[in-house]
Amino acid sequence: MNLDLVIKGGTVATASDTFAADVGIKDGRIAALAAELDGAETIDATGKLVLPGGIETHCHIEQESATGAMTSDDYYSGSVSALYGGNTSFVPFAAQHRGQSVADTLETYHARARKSVIDYSFHLIITDPSEEVLKEGLPAAFRQGITSFKVFMTYDKMIVSDEMMLDILVTAREHGALTMVHAENNALIKWMVKRLVERGHEAAKYHAVSHPAAAEAEAIHRGIRLATFVGAPLLIVHVSTDEGARLVAKARQEGHAIFGETCPQYLFLTHADLDRPGAEGAKFCCSPPLRDGKTQADLWRHLQAGTFHLWSSDHAPYRFDETGKLAAGPNPPFTKIANGMPGIAMRAPLLMSEGVNKGRISLNQFVALTATNGAKLFGMHPKKGTIAIGADADIAIWDPAAKRTITAADMHDAMDYTPFEGFEITGWPETMITRGRVALSGGTLHAARGDGAFVPRAPFDFTGYTAPPPAELDPANGFGVALID
Amino acid sequence: MNLDLVIKGGTVATASDTFAADVGIKDGRIAALAAELDGAETIDATGKLVLPGGIETHCHIEQESATGAMTSDDYYSGSVSALYGGNTSFVPFAAQHRGQSVADTLETYHARARKSVIDYSFHLIITDPSEEVLKEGLPAAFRQGITSFKVFMTYDKMIVSDEMMLDILVTAREHGALTMVHAENNALIKWMVKRLVERGHEAAKYHAVSHPAAAEAEAIHRGIRLATFVGAPLLIVHVSTDEGARLVAKARQEGHAIFGETCPQYLFLTHADLDRPGAEGAKFCCSPPLRDGKTQADLWRHLQAGTFHLWSSDHAPYRFDETGKLAAGPNPPFTKIANGMPGIAMRAPLLMSEGVNKGRISLNQFVALTATNGAKLFGMHPKKGTIAIGADADIAIWDPAAKRTITAADMHDAMDYTPFEGFEITGWPETMITRGRVALSGGTLHAARGDGAFVPRAPFDFTGYTAPPPAELDPANGFGVALID
Amino acid sequence: MNLDLVIKGGTVATASDTFAADVGIKDGRIAALAAELDGAETIDATGKLVLPGGIETHCHIEQESATGAMTSDDYYSGSVSALYGGNTSFVPFAAQHRGQSVADTLETYHARARKSVIDYSFHLIITDPSEEVLKEGLPAAFRQGITSFKVFMTYDKMIVSDEMMLDILVTAREHGALTMVHAENNALIKWMVKRLVERGHEAAKYHAVSHPAAAEAEAIHRGIRLATFVGAPLLIVHVSTDEGARLVAKARQEGHAIFGETCPQYLFLTHADLDRPGAEGAKFCCSPPLRDGKTQADLWRHLQAGTFHLWSSDHAPYRFDETGKLAAGPNPPFTKIANGMPGIAMRAPLLMSEGVNKGRISLNQFVALTATNGAKLFGMHPKKGTIAIGADADIAIWDPAAKRTITAADMHDAMDYTPFEGFEITGWPETMITRGRVALSGGTLHAARGDGAFVPRAPFDFTGYTAPPPAELDPANGFGVALID
Amino acid sequence: MNLDLVIKGGTVATASDTFAADVGIKDGRIAALAAELDGAETIDATGKLVLPGGIETHCHIEQESATGAMTSDDYYSGSVSALYGGNTSFVPFAAQHRGQSVADTLETYHARARKSVIDYSFHLIITDPSEEVLKEGLPAAFRQGITSFKVFMTYDKMIVSDEMMLDILVTAREHGALTMVHAENNALIKWMVKRLVERGHEAAKYHAVSHPAAAEAEAIHRGIRLATFVGAPLLIVHVSTDEGARLVAKARQEGHAIFGETCPQYLFLTHADLDRPGAEGAKFCCSPPLRDGKTQADLWRHLQAGTFHLWSSDHAPYRFDETGKLAAGPNPPFTKIANGMPGIAMRAPLLMSEGVNKGRISLNQFVALTATNGAKLFGMHPKKGTIAIGADADIAIWDPAAKRTITAADMHDAMDYTPFEGFEITGWPETMITRGRVALSGGTLHAARGDGAFVPRAPFDFTGYTAPPPAELDPANGFGVALID
Repeated sequence: MNLDLVIKGGTVATASDTFAADVGIKDGRIAALAAELDGAETIDATGKLVLPGGIETHCHIEQESATGAMTSDDYYSGSVSALYGGNTSFVPFAAQHRGQSVADTLETYHARARKSVIDYSFHLIITDPSEEVLKEGLPAAFRQGITSFKVFMTYDKMIVSDEMMLDILVTAREHGALTMVHAENNALIKWMVKRLVERGHEAAKYHAVSHPAAAEAEAIHRGIRLATFVGAPLLIVHVSTDEGARLVAKARQEGHAIFGETCPQYLFLTHADLDRPGAEGAKFCCSPPLRDGKTQADLWRHLQAGTFHLWSSDHAPYRFDETGKLAAGPNPPFTKIANGMPGIAMRAPLLMSEGVNKGRISLNQFVALTATNGAKLFGMHPKKGTIAIGADADIAIWDPAAKRTITAADMHDAMDYTPFEGFEITGWPETMITRGRVALSGGTLHAARGDGAFVPRAPFDFTGYTAPPPAELDPANGFGVALID
Repeated sequence: MNLDLVIKGGTVATASDTFAADVGIKDGRIAALAAELDGAETIDATGKLVLPGGIETHCHIEQESATGAMTSDDYYSGSVSALYGGNTSFVPFAAQHRGQSVADTLETYHARARKSVIDYSFHLIITDPSEEVLKEGLPAAFRQGITSFKVFMTYDKMIVSDEMMLDILVTAREHGALTMVHAENNALIKWMVKRLVERGHEAAKYHAVSHPAAAEAEAIHRGIRLATFVGAPLLIVHVSTDEGARLVAKARQEGHAIFGETCPQYLFLTHADLDRPGAEGAKFCCSPPLRDGKTQADLWRHLQAGTFHLWSSDHAPYRFDETGKLAAGPNPPFTKIANGMPGIAMRAPLLMSEGVNKGRISLNQFVALTATNGAKLFGMHPKKGTIAIGADADIAIWDPAAKRTITAADMHDAMDYTPFEGFEITGWPETMITRGRVALSGGTLHAARGDGAFVPRAPFDFTGYTAPPPAELDPANGFGVALID
Repeated sequence: MNLDLVIKGGTVATASDTFAADVGIKDGRIAALAAELDGAETIDATGKLVLPGGIETHCHIEQESATGAMTSDDYYSGSVSALYGGNTSFVPFAAQHRGQSVADTLETYHARARKSVIDYSFHLIITDPSEEVLKEGLPAAFRQGITSFKVFMTYDKMIVSDEMMLDILVTAREHGALTMVHAENNALIKWMVKRLVERGHEAAKYHAVSHPAAAEAEAIHRGIRLATFVGAPLLIVHVSTDEGARLVAKARQEGHAIFGETCPQYLFLTHADLDRPGAEGAKFCCSPPLRDGKTQADLWRHLQAGTFHLWSSDHAPYRFDETGKLAAGPNPPFTKIANGMPGIAMRAPLLMSEGVNKGRISLNQFVALTATNGAKLFGMHPKKGTIAIGADADIAIWDPAAKRTITAADMHDAMDYTPFEGFEITGWPETMITRGRVALSGGTLHAARGDGAFVPRAPFDFTGYTAPPPAELDPANGFGVALID
Repeated sequence: MNLDLVIKGGTVATASDTFAADVGIKDGRIAALAAELDGAETIDATGKLVLPGGIETHCHIEQESATGAMTSDDYYSGSVSALYGGNTSFVPFAAQHRGQSVADTLETYHARARKSVIDYSFHLIITDPSEEVLKEGLPAAFRQGITSFKVFMTYDKMIVSDEMMLDILVTAREHGALTMVHAENNALIKWMVKRLVERGHEAAKYHAVSHPAAAEAEAIHRGIRLATFVGAPLLIVHVSTDEGARLVAKARQEGHAIFGETCPQYLFLTHADLDRPGAEGAKFCCSPPLRDGKTQADLWRHLQAGTFHLWSSDHAPYRFDETGKLAAGPNPPFTKIANGMPGIAMRAPLLMSEGVNKGRISLNQFVALTATNGAKLFGMHPKKGTIAIGADADIAIWDPAAKRTITAADMHDAMDYTPFEGFEITGWPETMITRGRVALSGGTLHAARGDGAFVPRAPFDFTGYTAPPPAELDPANGFGVALID
């Protein structure tokens, strides 16, 4: 066995195991794991953690927002930042405009993504589930290995109705695709916004007031109801409330393929950050909004207990200037502040520091939350998301003891701020390997524009989820009819 | 004390007590309760139950349906049928057409109601909560004593959006009005209907399939969420599922003014009735639809446990002929069958027979469910809904041992069928007294067209409900603002 | 109708209704209710509330404690204090010593009770459910109208094992008796006490620490499980935790005859009172112990929502001297402080003031919680607990506007303190009528020693409770056998 | 790298990953995983699954029962049978007799276990938690690597009181040991047995009636309450009811280290098996008893959803003859039938066939449930329970397509029956490797008596469980004291 590269002396971890081993790589794949290996090249990982490269499955890259603003990060800067943050693949969104065909949409994003330094796929955002989209566009997308999409229950320009959502979910079920949903009750938010604005409450902090916990809880309940009715899998993204998380856990306990994701901002920031002086609060506007301290503790508990399968950044980079957060002026009303914040580079380091190093979660949970679970849910496993023979050699070598103070300059994105500025953390991904190539080491980027490749993905795997169909669709009740083919 | 009329020798029951007493009436009101009373006239009630006259708070009388069809019962036949069924007041709906003013709507219904033989009020159905309706129409209605309204979360011609519902609920809260809601997820129903029709499943029995339990559970959850968010009272009408009932009970246990109602059809009939031969199933089309045997048992349990405050008929009379159920032909597809069934005359007798006489509920629960609770929730108590000094002498004298076989002819409505045809029951309201007058006795109607009068009603009484406002609106969290005046 | 006494001009309330009426009394019973009545004697109740006399169903009178100490109140002082507090009947405990026969026990208490100024019955405390007790003692007690008993899941001298409890519950079910239970996990308490004492934590405040909420929640769950297994009704007395209350509500929602009671001390005091200076904390030692502010709010919510049927004092009077609280010395360790506090005189006034007058509960809920529900659960209704024709004329005339500052001297018990000293309240029972006699007026006691009589009580009424038997006992499962006769 | 043995061409699976790899073994440990490996010896695993050897963590081997009967299997036959069933380690019980020291107990079992063909440890059964046991015996056991014990909430000869259980749990918490509990309410069972016997219901089928679901639900609730009160981890063994499983899931969702186990008999058999003709039912007597078909479906759902961490046999082998099941005669009353059934050889094959091969669970879930989770919970990971570099080479090579009809002769235990006789299954462990040695192949045993070794185990790892202490023990409430050191 002539290995191209050997990572020597490190501690390897997967979603289930932790062990000392050398990792041998050949032709871009993991070819050997052994106590002692030799190769053409070696990397000394003594005292280091050798982990599957992170897979960021929730980020907005080179995407026009609902209001038309383009994210500051394109596929180059976004992928570079992801890589610096311990990731070797990502799955940004390809967003359909209303009226646009799926083919057009994908073509646009394939073109944009070619400059990525890491491997990628897309989740298709569906805003217009026309007959054509459902019958031709989506099936064609699935055939090319894009087996997940996302819908919004809020934002006037993105929202799909409950009826559209049923059509989408049933299509997903038929093809084994996973639907992601941004679940907030649009009406409740709009109603709050109207009342706030009428009363002159337009400071950034009112963004949190305008997006109450009830809006999330209601929409998560409704989304789960619709999904379980047709037997389709559903991923609730960026869950930010205890109640929302409980609904996810309950549905899965009942046998349904319902999943949840949360994000660092909900565990490390609060709505008090929206009340920072001057326009600073604008940096912290995202939806769902930041909550309170009790919720932070609740979400940690759900993260530990396995309620959430995914820990994602929801990286949505709008600069703190007139191209982004301040487009509507130097002191914008909360209604005119682009929603979202950057974080693709800090997702994994924050969890390593505050989760693993503080003893809240195990290293295996870290791997599952940042890499393996995403790979499994989105059909990239075992090619991605693990350290196993035959898997792509996508590896992050972490120094678990490295101390850093977070600052925007270290993010390597196209942003001018990080919401985590000044946080002191322990643990850092020092060396990144993508398909066997050293893409980053010693703080220096080696990967080149276009090194990343599109990753076709497999359908959703239903194994383990067998909730019964609703009584109305059960032939045993005498009325049952094959309503869902 | 010169009493006009004395009911002698009976057993009187209220929502809390049962006792032997003579009941003395003067000037249309209950003037005395005593072991022994004398009056100008007497009625012998030996061996009989002397109960508050029923108050039917959910019935459609002389009302155009969503599809424009007029109910077969007008205020004369409807009130006569109600009276024969043990009722002395009712509260039908005054339904706003989209674009119609509240004043116009009420004027129309006041005119129609003048022929009623029993006292009445209206619940205002709001389909178009314009600024004018919210700011002027409803407040004016409240000022004239119409302190309840109803909204629909389903039916394309009636549905209000979540945002409209919030506006309506907040208006209700400000004025102390009670909102009633028909809670079914419209999208889920339409989606099912479409798939059923596409597959040629158009028989009446598919009506039940098209309105799944999930549609009710989802909408009840959403309705409760919206109401509790703004702190408004809400009555979920015709709850037909265990899950829906549990949501109602849970909300009230948490301190919210959330109430539930169920109807005889959900306890005595099942979706199997929709599968009767020929077009017979059309008689049993109502929404929410009839469910199954397990659900019947669940609803009995909730009725016993106090989950439901109201037992109503949802009388929605469409004849089994071309003016009603068969308007679309002799064998209509379920999508073209008018929704609803008659029942105003059987509501109380069925509960007396199967509830009280079979030992499932107490006589006091019967009084509460058929009269007192409705009077209290809708601001008619203590004038209506009880036997107490000063209350209107609205009294039903029941023979608890009378046996009857239910048949359409005994209903005295303008209908040609009853869904309970052939049921054998025990207990019957033999003599009815309205404001001190014998309105019905020995099967003979004495009341005259127009004997009924409009009853102005008091605002909703919040005593006993003190759930905290949502965290977003709590000043203590630092963001609280007076969003709800 | 020659009435002996008429209460004129007041506002009468029952558990369901409130109305203006004169109340006519003849031969000790309520004979007439009317707008205007004349009688041999009259009481002017203008501006006053005319309510059913309270029924105190949880109090320890002339009873030896588990440790042998006699309560300070005997049937004379206890009944006088009860009367001053708005009560016209009470049901103290007749406590079996281990080895003692039921007949002996009852004889002892019948003798003691003869000096009562108000009507009475007994709940039998069972500490030794021998074959003889179960087969002969209890049935004989039931035949004489003592249809409730109480068991303890804690206190080494009182505790019954789970197996004994099943025997008792099944006996209760067979005879229609209601079992009351003090539900705290004895082992958990003893274990905590041991650890506290080992560490030298013996101040009064550690009493609260030693009786954790978990001990109550565990025992309530277990008690409910045992009762529902055999289908017996069960009343959880003095529920002091949100979790305990939720368990009660859940069981009843599922159709079981499970009831809850709470007491003023849990809504008006907290464990901080146990930390008052010097030995003062001893005054506040009771079990379950006082909890915290959040729990107070929780219990109010459960009181409003109907979780609890009863509002009782758990009057357990031990003086703050060497005969009572300080028997073990001037600064006793919490393990040697007699458990309990006085409150029979303040139960109703506190609820009137803080419940009714502050708008938290309705006047009808007040009547239900202090009189009617107890009468119903314990088989005294309709003779007791309401204002209805034929009922005993047991009436409390309240001045709803009277202001008082609570002080021990006004309690008229044999105690030297009240835990509510200094509380300012609104509403006071000014005139008390027992079986038609003015027993108290203008602060002066008119009732004489021995005016009270024993009240035989009816069996528990199962109407409204129909939870299915456990699957193991259901003949339908093929194994069913008549294990419970 | 000179490998001693290479398993070539198989599909390797861990609890998280599945991949094609050769597995290289050296010095009894897994030394290499690679696409292609060479070694001194090779095993062809083409088309086979190469899995971590099973770890049976719930079995009774060479143990006297509560009634003194010795299990039919000693450490030789028991370990051989386990090996044939795909296991490479097991953890039987070392059962303390009352009065016996921990040291004595362990010495006895160490002596017995020396004949095992597979590696082993013991869970210590504590029946007598004396001061000496708690302060010296258990700590000494922990120091030698026995870091789990078991208590019984039932069986008169084994039962520990709640107070003892608290002492044990706190000791476990202090030392990082995991407590296992047999959770059934002893009183409820005894009470049922007494009534059944009194009525002459003594056939085997009444065993199920005598152990109602309520007994399990109550005890699981109580056990969880006690464990969470002191913050100790707890494993509920052989959960046999939906309600019990829900309690486990709820506790873990709240952040507590509470775990559940279920067994094949509860998913594949029902109480109907207890009603087989003649004395056959005796074969199916175990506690908790077999339940019904609905429960089977519930338990599958919980297994899929991750409620249970462990899938164990609870192998408790008593022969169907006068040494075992029929000791009390040829047709014994259920009260005299030894509880338990054999199954150590069928645990894994049944789950492979009905779980993995029927698509209910993934292969990774199979590995987790049969090997990895047990290794982790019981401190044997990563030495045992996985295929990773450095782990013991304990490997089971399965033919996933092999078809078998289960029959007692194939079990290789000392039993004369299997409860799964005649079941047709797919998937069989063909070759077993223990610490690098081929212990079994082609149906032939190669392992020798005594090949197994004692495995010292690490303490319980609390990472991921951070539920707050009970309010009473929280210093923040002003009463908090260090009651738990």
